[in-house]
Amino acid sequence: MRAKLWVIKIGGNIIDDAEGLGRFLERFANLRGYKILVHGGGKIATRMAADLGIEAKLVEGRRITDEAMLRIVTMVYAGLTNKQIVAELQEKGCNAIGLSGADGNAIRTVKRPVKTVDYGFVGDILPGSVDTDTVATFVNAGFTPVFSAITHDGHGQLLNTNADTIAAALAVALSAQYATSLVYCFEKRGVLRDITDENAIIPEIRAGEFEQLKTSGIIADGMVPKLYNAFEAISKGVDEVCIGHAEDLHLLREQHFGTRLVR
Amino acid sequence: MRAKLWVIKIGGNIIDDAEGLGRFLERFANLRGYKILVHGGGKIATRMAADLGIEAKLVEGRRITDEAMLRIVTMVYAGLTNKQIVAELQEKGCNAIGLSGADGNAIRTVKRPVKTVDYGFVGDILPGSVDTDTVATFVNAGFTPVFSAITHDGHGQLLNTNADTIAAALAVALSAQYATSLVYCFEKRGVLRDITDENAIIPEIRAGEFEQLKTSGIIADGMVPKLYNAFEAISKGVDEVCIGHAEDLHLLREQHFGTRLVR
Repeated sequence: MRAKLWVIKIGGNIIDDAEGLGRFLERFANLRGYKILVHGGGKIATRMAADLGIEAKLVEGRRITDEAMLRIVTMVYAGLTNKQIVAELQEKGCNAIGLSGADGNAIRTVKRPVKTVDYGFVGDILPGSVDTDTVATFVNAGFTPVFSAITHDGHGQLLNTNADTIAAALAVALSAQYATSLVYCFEKRGVLRDITDENAIIPEIRAGEFEQLKTSGIIADGMVPKLYNAFEAISKGVDEVCIGHAEDLHLLREQHFGTRLVR
Repeated sequence: MRAKLWVIKIGGNIIDDAEGLGRFLERFANLRGYKILVHGGGKIATRMAADLGIEAKLVEGRRITDEAMLRIVTMVYAGLTNKQIVAELQEKGCNAIGLSGADGNAIRTVKRPVKTVDYGFVGDILPGSVDTDTVATFVNAGFTPVFSAITHDGHGQLLNTNADTIAAALAVALSAQYATSLVYCFEKRGVLRDITDENAIIPEIRAGEFEQLKTSGIIADGMVPKLYNAFEAISKGVDEVCIGHAEDLHLLREQHFGTRLVR
């Protein structure tokens, strides 16, 4: 039987709230079993860029990672944020190690090809991007990997990569060796049946129900790609995807955390 | 028999010279056997602080790490510099993992007590600071640890720590398990018999000769504490300490690298 592995992703909104982050990390540290944390960026990089007089470049509303911005996100995500999280987890008794995709060649991506837009130093994950041996070595040795969203191309180039995608790729790649649950923490307590009612959490959605929920308009806007990607991860071997609030993490084990997506 | 382990420290002068760093990393990657790299800071942090309008604080000529400066050195040393080195080593076929002392609780220091000067967030290494099990786990699994000079106190606080001291502490702690050589790369090709002659390298100094070389003035100024610390590491179990130029690293194995300090 494969051992249980949690792959948990937190976004920028939690990183930016020191107290909320502390409460989350407490709960994360207390979660038993093998686990991996993936963290996004937060506003520190944007603020740092502004303080350094570097303008955030946007093309068609999408952020471009030029060389100056890559230096900043590498410093902030892989340096400041990652090491602060690791130090705090160590304090809480969780033997964390902070990693970028370059470390141990854990996640090797490909610079996004230029079609109409040149996104700059952005790395796309391909099948085979995750070195499962490296990650499993750390996990099996009792360490808790904490990944920032910085990867590399294997040719000496660091690349900025979407944290949601990293979490999904890790969960999928490791599902051959572990019974993997992918957990997305966001600002809501789950997928809501009624967007105006914070308590109307849908406890479970099966893959077959997704289309119907889309058609009826219950799942709309930003939740559509989120759930699409989640069900894709499930179709590739992940046992379940859980979506809910960071501060509800202690409810994970009793399966009362947010919305559970299953096969 | 203990396996051979190289602990190699490079300073800021190499970090600041992209081409020289590339040549060093090529030689480091080609060095066979177990190895660890420890890197100092360089001028990027000072420049970053200036660009952000943060003044470097000095008391009695010594740099103070206040909270703003700690954030900067964490970003630059543990983020930018560390990950760039790791990505470049990966390109060169060396399976590097970048670590701070917080990662895997590898190096746990104590905030320097305030006597006459408050140095701020500076961590001092004590006996037992190095978690040899953690470092040996990485080394034995085939990874090459690359340490930045950022440590933690185990209570959630990151601390700025002297890179020379980190390298010595790693070499001493690991000498129980490995036949350890500690290598300091600096801007000269070795300890010089005549400071005006770059080629007058002393090939070997035995512990018993140190006092005499000091008395005669051949070893003076900054070299005195450097060699004192080196012989202390040797007295605590390190096999040898080698001091020379980063670009001569390929001469290490034939024992033609700089100056060799032995028992």
